[in-house]
Amino acid sequence: MDIVILTIGSEILKGRTLNTNATYIAGRLYAAGFNVVQERAIADGEGLIVRALEECFSTADIVIATGGLGPTRDDVTKSAACKFMGRRLVFDQQYYDHLERMFQRMGYNSVPERSYSQAEAPEDAEVLPNSQGTAPGLWMNEDGKVLVLLPGVPREMEHLIDEQVLPRLIERYTSGTNHSAIVRTIGIGESIVAEQIEQELEENERELLNYYPHSGFLDVVIASSGEMAPATAETVVKVSAHVNRVLEKNVYATEEKDIWEVIAGYLASRGQKLAVAESCTGGLLAQMITSISGASRWFAGGVVTYSNASKRDLLGVRSGLLENHGAVSEEVAVAMARGAVERLGAQWSLAITGIAGPGGGSEDKPVGTVYIVLSGPGGSTCERYSFNGNRSHVRHRSAIKATELLWRNLRRSAGG
Amino acid sequence: MDIVILTIGSEILKGRTLNTNATYIAGRLYAAGFNVVQERAIADGEGLIVRALEECFSTADIVIATGGLGPTRDDVTKSAACKFMGRRLVFDQQYYDHLERMFQRMGYNSVPERSYSQAEAPEDAEVLPNSQGTAPGLWMNEDGKVLVLLPGVPREMEHLIDEQVLPRLIERYTSGTNHSAIVRTIGIGESIVAEQIEQELEENERELLNYYPHSGFLDVVIASSGEMAPATAETVVKVSAHVNRVLEKNVYATEEKDIWEVIAGYLASRGQKLAVAESCTGGLLAQMITSISGASRWFAGGVVTYSNASKRDLLGVRSGLLENHGAVSEEVAVAMARGAVERLGAQWSLAITGIAGPGGGSEDKPVGTVYIVLSGPGGSTCERYSFNGNRSHVRHRSAIKATELLWRNLRRSAGG
Repeated sequence: MDIVILTIGSEILKGRTLNTNATYIAGRLYAAGFNVVQERAIADGEGLIVRALEECFSTADIVIATGGLGPTRDDVTKSAACKFMGRRLVFDQQYYDHLERMFQRMGYNSVPERSYSQAEAPEDAEVLPNSQGTAPGLWMNEDGKVLVLLPGVPREMEHLIDEQVLPRLIERYTSGTNHSAIVRTIGIGESIVAEQIEQELEENERELLNYYPHSGFLDVVIASSGEMAPATAETVVKVSAHVNRVLEKNVYATEEKDIWEVIAGYLASRGQKLAVAESCTGGLLAQMITSISGASRWFAGGVVTYSNASKRDLLGVRSGLLENHGAVSEEVAVAMARGAVERLGAQWSLAITGIAGPGGGSEDKPVGTVYIVLSGPGGSTCERYSFNGNRSHVRHRSAIKATELLWRNLRRSAGG
Repeated sequence: MDIVILTIGSEILKGRTLNTNATYIAGRLYAAGFNVVQERAIADGEGLIVRALEECFSTADIVIATGGLGPTRDDVTKSAACKFMGRRLVFDQQYYDHLERMFQRMGYNSVPERSYSQAEAPEDAEVLPNSQGTAPGLWMNEDGKVLVLLPGVPREMEHLIDEQVLPRLIERYTSGTNHSAIVRTIGIGESIVAEQIEQELEENERELLNYYPHSGFLDVVIASSGEMAPATAETVVKVSAHVNRVLEKNVYATEEKDIWEVIAGYLASRGQKLAVAESCTGGLLAQMITSISGASRWFAGGVVTYSNASKRDLLGVRSGLLENHGAVSEEVAVAMARGAVERLGAQWSLAITGIAGPGGGSEDKPVGTVYIVLSGPGGSTCERYSFNGNRSHVRHRSAIKATELLWRNLRRSAGG
């Protein structure tokens, strides 16, 4: 089944909000084997919505729309859907009673006038109960075309997709047998990967390769896409084994797993702990680490030392080192890493010091100069980088390179 | 000028990647007064692209497309654009020479064969030089329709939008006189804001109100949208003054400014410094702070104390406190904040300790329980919260509430 995801709401078009709803829905549909052929975002407006529905149904059988179901004046999705489907908007007593109970639980005597419209639904629409809010989802069916309307609030939309929409889609429509595999890599570029992988493959196998670079990482997904026929399990297994073999040095997972989950596995299994000392990344690395739940088992803690004084007081970096070599130097990075191990009681530590910009660069150490040190049971390793790009980019690249350095060392010492 | 943003690449449709490119472009266009009428994402595929261009140009004069300009097989945007515009793809010697110099700087002897195609451009297309990568942008013009092709790599796309595309758009097309204003608030919900603001306004003024909530923040944008006529400067000024007055207690900016830039202003003007001590937020707060360039002038540093030992060693929290009250308690939060002030040499500090989940909760202190302490020249304030939601949500809400606490106190002591 071909599906279009339609996001209704002008905040998207003004660039004020990332369209996380479309990404969530697309990911869930993809995982369930459905084919999303288009995502589209438009502003609230009856005419705009009707026209978009006409175009979307010319390429797809199912349209899932989010937004414009709220109680305010600019919420016109239901009336537009009625216009498109040629139906009336009718009052749903059953849903109104449900709404009344919800508002009473929230401490109201009755349903506020502005929320009456929440109980209106297109005639013959299936009402999808929303336990997280007042706007229900709506499922409309006409001549084999399915139009699903969902509220735009992420928590409510996610709940409705998982509890109401996906089960119906899976039950009512055969999902495609679109086999796929993923190979996740770090520290290698797209063009080199493509060159290394593709030479030994047949044309029909090459067509299955999709490259998804994301700031230092590169996922290779083996699956059919676009206008192609679904891939067979046999071909996917063969191609993914090949990809895995060729990129072996850079592969950290062959499933949907974060690299920090892989690192967590190494550390936890040895009963070792990691500490971090950050200057230019300012907490970014610690934040990535602690986004993994259960990190306290293997993460001893971190310090963000933005000044010479804090490098000295929190990490024991000697003033002489700071004066002679500067805060951005191999010597200070090594001292930061050693200090983190000692002060935080860890076996491993990562230290990062550099110039993220826009100010602070010199001829010797221009903006983008970053020292990364890994200290471990076997000693310390220092890497010096010269990153291009703006402040945010330099910070991000630094945190990813530190991650890679640790992962490589843990894998090596595990005999991997 | 009505503009459509077209994102080409199947990673979006599989829900693997947020469409940050479309958001970036939309934001820049909106700020420059252009009207984005649609965003659309489709997979790589010549037929798909040609069809999308046909539909997009039926509602807009300008289409800005990203993606599919790379050197690999699935990059077919240029050939699809040629098909749509009825042009041939021709070899651009000048760009090839430029490419050769780029590859030589990267240490290659010559341009790799697979990158030859980067030097091909639709005939009569304007080549937009890309200093960040090998694929140039392309600007095509036909019968008053403008098609702009940009690479999908965010850094390259952003550079081309800012340096090449926006200047051309502004020079060649009168930007709309669509007046607008913004009022940025923290700590207040959308429905309360709407109720408070809207009662005293006329219908035509209410129509200008747009609410953009984003995790603890709410922007009120006063502007026309969708199918409405452009707003006059007079009405926008009147409505924004009203909004500002009504929401005064929660307004931190009336321009596109981050709340941490506002806080930076308060601290820098007094020559004071801030330190942070984070447990459950794990570096998130420090990372938000240090994303502001020049933060070293007013940010003394931070510690991420994930264990009792690190709270004791780095912040001087007494073992007795940890044993008697637990790491998640008002007493420990206060001691963390005081320790941060002392150890990091700051006048102000924020400390956060809590249970982000999914594990670690108890009946007394369920998941979502978070203590936030602000310590300043006038003493300490502690707030206890019970946040709903998952780990990432609890962490994020905690960091935002800490930010609000500091901002309120700085504003109050500045007499604001």
